[in-house]
Amino acid sequence: MTIAGNMIIGKELVQGSKKAIYGINPATGENLEPAFLGGGAQEVERACALAEQAFDAYRETDLESRAKFLEQIASNLAANGPAIVERAGLESGLPKARLEGELGRTMNQLKLFAEEVRAGRWLGVKVDTAMPERTPLPRSDLRLRHIPLGPVAVFGASNFPLAFSVAGGDTASALAAGCPVVVKGHSAHPGTSELVGKAIQEAVKTCNMPEGTFSLLFGSGADIGSALVADSRIKAVGFTGSRSGGVALMKIAAARPEPIPVYAEMSSINPVYLLPEALKNRADAIATGFVNSLLMGSGQFCTNPGLLIVKEAPELDAFIGKVAELVSTSTPSIMLTPGIHQAYESGVARLKANSNVQEIAQAKEASGPNQCRANLFVTNAKAFLQDHALRDEVFGSSSLIIKCKTDDEVLELTKSLEGQLTATVLMEPNDDKVFIKKLLSILERKVGRILFNGYPTGVEVCHAMVHGGPFPATSDSRTTSVGTEAIWRFLRPVCYQDVPVDLLPLALKDNGINIPKLINGK
Amino acid sequence: MTIAGNMIIGKELVQGSKKAIYGINPATGENLEPAFLGGGAQEVERACALAEQAFDAYRETDLESRAKFLEQIASNLAANGPAIVERAGLESGLPKARLEGELGRTMNQLKLFAEEVRAGRWLGVKVDTAMPERTPLPRSDLRLRHIPLGPVAVFGASNFPLAFSVAGGDTASALAAGCPVVVKGHSAHPGTSELVGKAIQEAVKTCNMPEGTFSLLFGSGADIGSALVADSRIKAVGFTGSRSGGVALMKIAAARPEPIPVYAEMSSINPVYLLPEALKNRADAIATGFVNSLLMGSGQFCTNPGLLIVKEAPELDAFIGKVAELVSTSTPSIMLTPGIHQAYESGVARLKANSNVQEIAQAKEASGPNQCRANLFVTNAKAFLQDHALRDEVFGSSSLIIKCKTDDEVLELTKSLEGQLTATVLMEPNDDKVFIKKLLSILERKVGRILFNGYPTGVEVCHAMVHGGPFPATSDSRTTSVGTEAIWRFLRPVCYQDVPVDLLPLALKDNGINIPKLINGK
Repeated sequence: MTIAGNMIIGKELVQGSKKAIYGINPATGENLEPAFLGGGAQEVERACALAEQAFDAYRETDLESRAKFLEQIASNLAANGPAIVERAGLESGLPKARLEGELGRTMNQLKLFAEEVRAGRWLGVKVDTAMPERTPLPRSDLRLRHIPLGPVAVFGASNFPLAFSVAGGDTASALAAGCPVVVKGHSAHPGTSELVGKAIQEAVKTCNMPEGTFSLLFGSGADIGSALVADSRIKAVGFTGSRSGGVALMKIAAARPEPIPVYAEMSSINPVYLLPEALKNRADAIATGFVNSLLMGSGQFCTNPGLLIVKEAPELDAFIGKVAELVSTSTPSIMLTPGIHQAYESGVARLKANSNVQEIAQAKEASGPNQCRANLFVTNAKAFLQDHALRDEVFGSSSLIIKCKTDDEVLELTKSLEGQLTATVLMEPNDDKVFIKKLLSILERKVGRILFNGYPTGVEVCHAMVHGGPFPATSDSRTTSVGTEAIWRFLRPVCYQDVPVDLLPLALKDNGINIPKLINGK
Repeated sequence: MTIAGNMIIGKELVQGSKKAIYGINPATGENLEPAFLGGGAQEVERACALAEQAFDAYRETDLESRAKFLEQIASNLAANGPAIVERAGLESGLPKARLEGELGRTMNQLKLFAEEVRAGRWLGVKVDTAMPERTPLPRSDLRLRHIPLGPVAVFGASNFPLAFSVAGGDTASALAAGCPVVVKGHSAHPGTSELVGKAIQEAVKTCNMPEGTFSLLFGSGADIGSALVADSRIKAVGFTGSRSGGVALMKIAAARPEPIPVYAEMSSINPVYLLPEALKNRADAIATGFVNSLLMGSGQFCTNPGLLIVKEAPELDAFIGKVAELVSTSTPSIMLTPGIHQAYESGVARLKANSNVQEIAQAKEASGPNQCRANLFVTNAKAFLQDHALRDEVFGSSSLIIKCKTDDEVLELTKSLEGQLTATVLMEPNDDKVFIKKLLSILERKVGRILFNGYPTGVEVCHAMVHGGPFPATSDSRTTSVGTEAIWRFLRPVCYQDVPVDLLPLALKDNGINIPKLINGK
């Protein structure tokens, strides 16, 4: 596969006519060839028209065909793995091993959703059989299945050029649900996006799926992003990115003549609670684990541990000293884009200038452009409670330690937090369970995932995962963007009352397909 | 129980200080005593503060206690049934038999949700067990349950003073999910609301539920409604009412610092498709069934059949003549409120003045105030396609027959419809199945419930029901406001990773409670 600077609209490869987009090698700051000419209204129109045309056929594909299609995408990604990983490395600055892992995860997500499609739980079939003799009124035959919402717009994320981008979790779950997908590729990795997009386009062809099942557009937010979300044929949106970007899409979606759901995964500072006995017994191990989590991927994870909350104790200074040492001896690593690096520098500069916080460590000098120097700051609960600026996510390897005087201060501070993707509790068996239960009760209302004695980076793709949480972690706390539950974002229930059996969808026929059903409540 | 003009805030009975609200007997137009002094910011504050205080304890009530609480409400309603039905009759003009039926339905809804609570499916428990030996990375122990969103604001509906009001479906499903409820009682039936509210308040006490589990406020939309939806402690909204009212709440909810879901069931004209063979074979029976559905409850149902779509045929004139005869000989019946009656008259007057439609029947003269005279209009597909005003719901017994020339015209017209709660197909086995399948495919995307050879009024409360649909039928097509699926509106998933067993919620412990679980995808 070559990279030609193309968008993908159904079976066509097309070039736009707007301003050129280049991938940038963040290690050098140099443009990567070729140019991707941005698309505009015309390309949005064509992609949405094709997606709409494809919908009725695609949504009724049998479970096995749809599952095979997802597996074919995974298989095409594997076949082009080396080229994809190489280009993604150039465009993102991420190391090869990380990208190989991410490609594997991307394929595994597709395969997991293939299994989920086959299992058929997503149809959510419920049958209440007719009761013609019931008095005073007979009961009709009532059958419920879930159907996909319609074409979905997916916005590729900068920080996972594979697993949350063109063939990432949003695309996999929307295709699994039966929704055609129009992706707006992220401008930070257009070449990677083209390669991955072609792998999907090829799978559409191989599996005889309708042409409009998949399209990939490039362009500015104004030219492509807003137009996609506003298009009447688009029925849901998947997005991973900044709070301002997500909120902008929420507003466009809410202002449509027909408002649609937006699943935006946005902003989280992921508090980590270090409890007294854990601090006493394994400060060094925790310092190492915490800093590893903080440095991982230059801190460019939604689950990066941006807060560490700890009560004052005799052991605390030594712990902070150890964390500071690890941060200050850490080697800067390349960030995804010059823009992200600049935003990180600004965020850190704001913290340095904030009289409520104390800078206690900074990584070694950068040796090249766009490198993230990890930063560690300390404040106290009182200052944090008063200064809302300290709640802003700094995307990158920056973390803020908050010293608390009492358990009550820890709880009060927790109550004051906005919604988060994760919260982490580091404890020992002899830490105060009564306090932990109080803390848990608050955290459950604030976050999507609570984890103990681990670190928040690293999100398992499985059935029980929740990568979600109350606003502003996401725009819709009722959902997750990772794991099989993500398929429900793109489905809605329809009831069929007394529909003659030859007109019933196969899934609703008594002997239609072998899937879980709730029959008369059993 | 006496009616004293009280609001209910937790265990207190309180009176407001704003403008007095009176129930009005629509049969006479006269105010009903006592006055209900409207509440304001102070009462919203107290009710929300109590609801927030109640939440943590209420949401962790064991399944059996919560189920018993719902059953206790049903039992208290039964004990006060005659007084409730009598007052509801005075305030709504609805006949006693209808209100007795509605009270039964209200109790059955509560009992069905009690069973749903016990069954525990709503916890949606998923467990992925740890894989410590997995390479390259071990898997943590991951457990998912659903937790309630938080306090819910419920807006009572005018047209079901019992089943969609203070103890109606929204309240029952929110309480079942574990959410405290603050109801804004509808100003059309404050006395009924007070009686029903006291039945809930009594059940809270009997079952030792936290005080703030339930409150009931009265007042204007500006004083109470907007303030409730904007209150930071309210985490979801249930509403049944007008499109303008629902859209206003959606806007307030979206503009909050933390946007919240609004479940508004709003506007639907419920197309009925009469197919050629059905028209040929059973025109008279269908005319009778259709007009019965149209006249039921003075047409004051969300599922009232506002459109009848039929292809021109030799038998059509006779059918329309029969429908016209039944409408013109029908006896006017009292509407719920003077305001609803006035809106009906305005809607009918607009249709009469519309040169695209022909009035073909009107019920007999009214014999008293606020009576609904059923109306029947006819137009053709071409006119309907061009005139968007013909899509507006006229709340009451008014229906519009649309004559189509071809099957394609029927399909085109269907594509042009907004979202609906229901669509009805009246057919015979020898009607054209190819056409019906095309029609079904369009209808699935437009409606929440498709029914064959019946009429849309009458909504079964069961597991497979969907009383929902795309905007503007509702604000959120992914849900239903009737049936057990309604509980999911008030829940969200939380993942527990490596949480020590003594800190895990009971439902997530291996031998915690006997509920359905998905373990490692099985």
